[in-house]
Amino acid sequence: MSPFPYYCNRMFGENVGLEFFEVIKLRRSTRAFMDERVSEEDIVKLLEAARLAPSAGNIQPWVFVVVRDADIKRRISEAALHQSFISKAPVVIVVCADLDRSKQRYRSRGVDLFCVQDTAAAIQNLLLAAVDLGLGACWVGAFHEDMVKVALKIPENLRPVAIVPVGRPAEKPNLPFRRPLEEIVHYETF
Amino acid sequence: MSPFPYYCNRMFGENVGLEFFEVIKLRRSTRAFMDERVSEEDIVKLLEAARLAPSAGNIQPWVFVVVRDADIKRRISEAALHQSFISKAPVVIVVCADLDRSKQRYRSRGVDLFCVQDTAAAIQNLLLAAVDLGLGACWVGAFHEDMVKVALKIPENLRPVAIVPVGRPAEKPNLPFRRPLEEIVHYETF
Repeated sequence: MSPFPYYCNRMFGENVGLEFFEVIKLRRSTRAFMDERVSEEDIVKLLEAARLAPSAGNIQPWVFVVVRDADIKRRISEAALHQSFISKAPVVIVVCADLDRSKQRYRSRGVDLFCVQDTAAAIQNLLLAAVDLGLGACWVGAFHEDMVKVALKIPENLRPVAIVPVGRPAEKPNLPFRRPLEEIVHYETF
Repeated sequence: MSPFPYYCNRMFGENVGLEFFEVIKLRRSTRAFMDERVSEEDIVKLLEAARLAPSAGNIQPWVFVVVRDADIKRRISEAALHQSFISKAPVVIVVCADLDRSKQRYRSRGVDLFCVQDTAAAIQNLLLAAVDLGLGACWVGAFHEDMVKVALKIPENLRPVAIVPVGRPAEKPNLPFRRPLEEIVHYETF
């Protein structure tokens, strides 16, 4: 199998959905993007996939900020320790966790665990959906949360948990090393 | 589209991979299972999907414990506030976060955020892979971590973050309510 067969499909204008495991295998952290607009239709598909993620008690503590504005992207990039590839992506999606929603039902376990897990599941759906659409994305976690909150005017009760630049990939990274199953799987007990 | 077309495929012995968005749409939290063994081959596929998730700095802070033993499943079920459907699943996968791996590189942000997100991404891949294989699963987060650690002899540096019962679904839950995009998406700023 060619490492990125979907490029060909897209080039020839086909829009056939990829098989699930193909998407799982093709996903990469993309940090270089073509200078090409991501359509509103594709962004909606990314967000639709994200909102179909599971969440504790179906609380759905996720909020998404879709940023195309160059100046705001620059400020997000600065908040993310000057990772300049962020501001070069055509669109940046900032994912926030609604701490209040999780806290009301689950107290500290909701704030410290569930709302981080729920939003992470949504982010993973979004990253996979990007692959299916012939897009690339990157899960950025290294950033100053306060700076992002100021740049996007995020309310107090929301915590920005990830910055996800999205665009048509301008690179084809290899799959980085993965620890073998023997190292990460136990049977019955340790 | 029939709500669970893959049942038909499986019934007739076909093994065609589902399209990605079909998997995203078909995933449900399954809490009732057929009395049917999950093959070792399928378990390996679930874990392969899980380990292809992204992680901060490619740390891969995930460890999986695959439990089929009835007595250990019963103890996990007890730790999970007596959610008895857990012990009735043919296999239960307990997902742990290796706090040391994340802490060494990212200190408190690694322990409190990244290793929870990384393992959540792996869990989400696993849940989606289950759908593709005609299986059902459920992400259980309500449990006493200490009791799970004792039952599975989990080392001190690992934190159990999810219990995932897996099996052939014996129910077809409807998609629970999802908040509309208008409520969860903002453009440029709040």
